Amino acid sequence: MTDPRPARLSALADGLTAAHVDGLLVSSLPNIRYLTGFSGSSALLFATPRDVVLITDFRYQTQVAEEVGQLARIVIEPQSLWTGLWQQLSQLGYPQVVGFESSHLLHRDFQRLLEAGARWQWRPTVDLVETLRERKDAGELGLIRAANGVATRALARTIEQVRIGMSELEVAGVLEKSLRDEGSEGFPFPSIVASGPRSALPHARSTNRVIEAGDFLLLDFGAETHGYCSDVTRTFVVGRAAPEQREIYDVVRVANETAASGVRAGMSGRDADAIARDYIQQRGYGDLFGHSLGHGLGLEVHEAPRLARTADGALAEGAVVTIEPGIYRPGWGGVRIEDDVFLGADGPVILTSFPHELMELG
Amino acid sequence: MTDPRPARLSALADGLTAAHVDGLLVSSLPNIRYLTGFSGSSALLFATPRDVVLITDFRYQTQVAEEVGQLARIVIEPQSLWTGLWQQLSQLGYPQVVGFESSHLLHRDFQRLLEAGARWQWRPTVDLVETLRERKDAGELGLIRAANGVATRALARTIEQVRIGMSELEVAGVLEKSLRDEGSEGFPFPSIVASGPRSALPHARSTNRVIEAGDFLLLDFGAETHGYCSDVTRTFVVGRAAPEQREIYDVVRVANETAASGVRAGMSGRDADAIARDYIQQRGYGDLFGHSLGHGLGLEVHEAPRLARTADGALAEGAVVTIEPGIYRPGWGGVRIEDDVFLGADGPVILTSFPHELMELG
Repeated sequence: MTDPRPARLSALADGLTAAHVDGLLVSSLPNIRYLTGFSGSSALLFATPRDVVLITDFRYQTQVAEEVGQLARIVIEPQSLWTGLWQQLSQLGYPQVVGFESSHLLHRDFQRLLEAGARWQWRPTVDLVETLRERKDAGELGLIRAANGVATRALARTIEQVRIGMSELEVAGVLEKSLRDEGSEGFPFPSIVASGPRSALPHARSTNRVIEAGDFLLLDFGAETHGYCSDVTRTFVVGRAAPEQREIYDVVRVANETAASGVRAGMSGRDADAIARDYIQQRGYGDLFGHSLGHGLGLEVHEAPRLARTADGALAEGAVVTIEPGIYRPGWGGVRIEDDVFLGADGPVILTSFPHELMELG
Repeated sequence: MTDPRPARLSALADGLTAAHVDGLLVSSLPNIRYLTGFSGSSALLFATPRDVVLITDFRYQTQVAEEVGQLARIVIEPQSLWTGLWQQLSQLGYPQVVGFESSHLLHRDFQRLLEAGARWQWRPTVDLVETLRERKDAGELGLIRAANGVATRALARTIEQVRIGMSELEVAGVLEKSLRDEGSEGFPFPSIVASGPRSALPHARSTNRVIEAGDFLLLDFGAETHGYCSDVTRTFVVGRAAPEQREIYDVVRVANETAASGVRAGMSGRDADAIARDYIQQRGYGDLFGHSLGHGLGLEVHEAPRLARTADGALAEGAVVTIEPGIYRPGWGGVRIEDDVFLGADGPVILTSFPHELMELG
């Protein structure tokens, strides 16, 4: 496969021209990874249409050479990345107006620009790299698909082992070991294993609560393949499902399937959100679906675009988004079903292959 | 045990007076957790000597009530946390000069203060809450000790299962499952399982590399107990250790033990770092120890203080710090040994109970 990075840097160069800056200081690590391949946890990148300089520290000396190669000038800075930045900018000489990432620069570091970096003109920019990242190329799509395969195979292994009497933490352990055994490089976010009434907490973490007969068991987790994420949720019943559980489950299932088959590139994030929300409202559960329908994913588990009531923008062709409606009844329990969906030119492609039907475990 | 939060809020109020601000906008989630107990991933806190207001979103409605109780006025904001903030500040009426956390506020949000929040005077502050967090109370020390117990019991389970031919990812899976089975609420940072030449990468992640006879195997990982972290590293040899491996291992072991027994509250971070660094230099490996000796830990796995060549400040009594010297020979391998140490009034207390002697696994 062609190295995608030169085309990304070239597209960024066009963005710099449009933003009227001579170069961009990139402080977002996922943006740095997208542009250069560097996956370490400490770096600053400075990019202009003709120079790309990556500054990192000793810990990444070997890794940065392997990952970045000749794409950028690599600087291993012994003191502070910022000291390295001033030196590099001075050596380059020509940049005068320099953009920075307003959404990824702390006020403390903004002060550095105004003080130690006072000889350059600094201009805030928003989403210059994020906009490029929104449209996935074939290689990226393949990695997100692979990360979905890892997640769903791990889920299949896990549910075979779930029993009444296990704690949420034990289930998390089985799930995470299955993810590792299937090759996940990491956990894009803290796995949620929420049982019984705790499944009504949309952002629960795993606890030592013991699973009882008749509990909902909600698993929300992801895998990572070459830096790209998957994000999957399924809700089960451990033991036998009650009629009310089946009813609410079915509303969420239909909301998921209707939205995943109805979402389109070019549609606004608000209209996509409304597909699921309107259905849940019609069924009388609108007040119990308090979060938004979904979000983009890629190198980050939350990235552009948003599928939400407040999202005006059109969904880009080539984006990968989650579709994750839920219904949460406090004190009783909740259901969420989440798949990852590619917004292709010919319509949505569901990347998560795992049944939607309610399964009774144990 | 007494609820520690009122005393923390009271200490913060003293800090606000000293900083000449009427109140503080707290945007750091660990700082919010420290002050209020709220552990969710979306919140803004506004604190004055007489009012404490916590703004979060729908997803945390149940959780925030349980965790925070009557300590703060809780606001569930349907649109944006910032909209909620302006409303609350307006209702309070009296604050005029408001501090914000310069190290935890993005430039984008700083712009909000200057625009939507233009009717208040904003003043950057640094480390007002972090300084309080540096000195652990007995409850916090107990939790960090517990998180160390979880980590070391999980490590003992793991090394029994390590065999030649396993991949790093498989070992990570065994380690993380053991951490969950021992009760860890999460993983404070991505576990490092690095074998053979990859052990020379101080910040390696786990890969599908297969472990060979004679490889170093470096495990750097942590556990989490009620939000408090441990951070532990041990390096093993799988199969039989070669003389050069033993020699380098022993230098790191002595550096660790000398520093852990020599570090004291009141000493500068630089002097603490020098205990290990000077010894490693004397033994001729100074160029291969490129990172700093350690860092504070608590609600975050990296917090104040730093033990580094560039750290002038005195280590606070009551801090918990890592002691983690290492020697890394690129292309060959590396060794790091890391314990967590409490800086008590009577000297250092090592919180990590796991042997330092070189162990041959498999």
